[in-house]
Amino acid sequence: MQAERILGGDLRALARAATAVENRTKEAEALLAELFPHTGRATIIGVTGPPGAGKSTLVDQLARALRAEGKRVGIIAVDPSSPFSGGAILGDRIRMQHHYADEGVFIRSMATRGQMGGLARGTLEMAMLLDAAGREAILIETVGVGQDEVEIARLADVTVVVLVPGMGDDVQAIKAGIMEIADVFAINKSDQPGADRLEQEVRANLLLASDHAKLDTPIVRTVAQEGKGVVELLGAVRLIKDKKIRNMAGLWGPRLCEMLRDRLLERMPADVIRAGAEAVGERRRDPFAVVEEWLRDWYPKPS
Amino acid sequence: MQAERILGGDLRALARAATAVENRTKEAEALLAELFPHTGRATIIGVTGPPGAGKSTLVDQLARALRAEGKRVGIIAVDPSSPFSGGAILGDRIRMQHHYADEGVFIRSMATRGQMGGLARGTLEMAMLLDAAGREAILIETVGVGQDEVEIARLADVTVVVLVPGMGDDVQAIKAGIMEIADVFAINKSDQPGADRLEQEVRANLLLASDHAKLDTPIVRTVAQEGKGVVELLGAVRLIKDKKIRNMAGLWGPRLCEMLRDRLLERMPADVIRAGAEAVGERRRDPFAVVEEWLRDWYPKPS
Repeated sequence: MQAERILGGDLRALARAATAVENRTKEAEALLAELFPHTGRATIIGVTGPPGAGKSTLVDQLARALRAEGKRVGIIAVDPSSPFSGGAILGDRIRMQHHYADEGVFIRSMATRGQMGGLARGTLEMAMLLDAAGREAILIETVGVGQDEVEIARLADVTVVVLVPGMGDDVQAIKAGIMEIADVFAINKSDQPGADRLEQEVRANLLLASDHAKLDTPIVRTVAQEGKGVVELLGAVRLIKDKKIRNMAGLWGPRLCEMLRDRLLERMPADVIRAGAEAVGERRRDPFAVVEEWLRDWYPKPS
Repeated sequence: MQAERILGGDLRALARAATAVENRTKEAEALLAELFPHTGRATIIGVTGPPGAGKSTLVDQLARALRAEGKRVGIIAVDPSSPFSGGAILGDRIRMQHHYADEGVFIRSMATRGQMGGLARGTLEMAMLLDAAGREAILIETVGVGQDEVEIARLADVTVVVLVPGMGDDVQAIKAGIMEIADVFAINKSDQPGADRLEQEVRANLLLASDHAKLDTPIVRTVAQEGKGVVELLGAVRLIKDKKIRNMAGLWGPRLCEMLRDRLLERMPADVIRAGAEAVGERRRDPFAVVEEWLRDWYPKPS
């Protein structure tokens, strides 16, 4: 019945289910399994890039452009730094406040829980929920730095990497980590000096890629503050999505591994981890023996 | 016999073992288990922070300062973006070239392998090897952005987060992801305008931390280019290491989980993942059912 309400677009039911997904209840999992056949219509767009690139503004403008087409939108703002998240996420929310009056935009923020991670899995499951609830585009925005963020952006259907001119000497370095996950580059603040050089640098980097398909990666110039280039960016995203739809298995491999990983680590009792860590810390045992023991006791090989 | 050579400081044996660790051979694991009782003397220092913060220069200066004390040093340069790593890592290597003539500095770079990750585990195992080989300080430097880098820095004994003045409006955001892993902050390029304000911002953020022990996090000002503040930074690192030694279990919990995670995912055959991903991609099955099946078939609950 809850599933029916969500499929019917009931916002209260959606909000309640989103909370259950965040809290990883057994009920949430059953609900998502029930909803799954109704997913696959949404385009899930990951937006990542270094801080200062204007990701929030760009996500905001993408949401506006989608709303202008009459599309229903979900936004998931991801901040892996929960204990300190006040700054970043709250700032984003305030910026997006004007959407709140519009039921066509559903915004949710996700923060990390515990040392075991699980943020990527949670974000993925939230995207499934929004997909089933009829959101035709789901924008996943990451704060920009952190262990899970590139991973999360990679789990989207289409990953947009936002860069800006004038990021300093180490533009090489900042690009290195995220070049390989980009399906589309957005050169934002492209009215600033250095946009041409940045585009050339990105193209030069793509030439070095081991995967030759990367050569065709679209590079779109935007000025998010003024809404410039946003429609073009959306067009590029859709072309990529159409291509990727032909290889859904390629999209789902990493997603399933993420879900598996998270469920596997949940099995280890905290006190067993602590006892093992103490034994190794005091050099009474070596870490390989401890991990072998854990594998034997908690994850025995199938017979 | 290989173990003895490594313990005796034989550089060729060390280099060969390092390659075996990189390739994750069974022999490497056996060797590390044998060497483990001889580890624990090194201080493992993770150095992370946004691109442009001057991490390479700082690592270089830390290595010099340690050499001036007669300490033997290991440097592990981590770049999770292997297909594109030419730029960043090569640049670092060139900058560090002058150390190569000195046997007291052993440099190794690590890049990612495959979608399953494993970089954190590999870096950790490399650090164990260097520790056993008598390197009294091991510096782990990350490029600055990427899924594994914060995770890797967190696995060190002491994590140094390098920040610089004038990182733009989103300094809040860039700090958010890495604030919680910092044992020590280095405010580098501190001769530039804005260093005072940056230090105030860091202190203000520490006040917001849920963990009150964070309030005492040292903040050291450096000008790595000129070697300023480097000895002070090393002093702060050593104080933290002395504190942490009292809680080795706290250090080893996340490390063991990382090793466990990596070994668990190795068990899944690629063709099973592919078949599951195809079934989900075509909506023939829901992802929860597939993951449940994998858990049942490949990771049965212990009886």
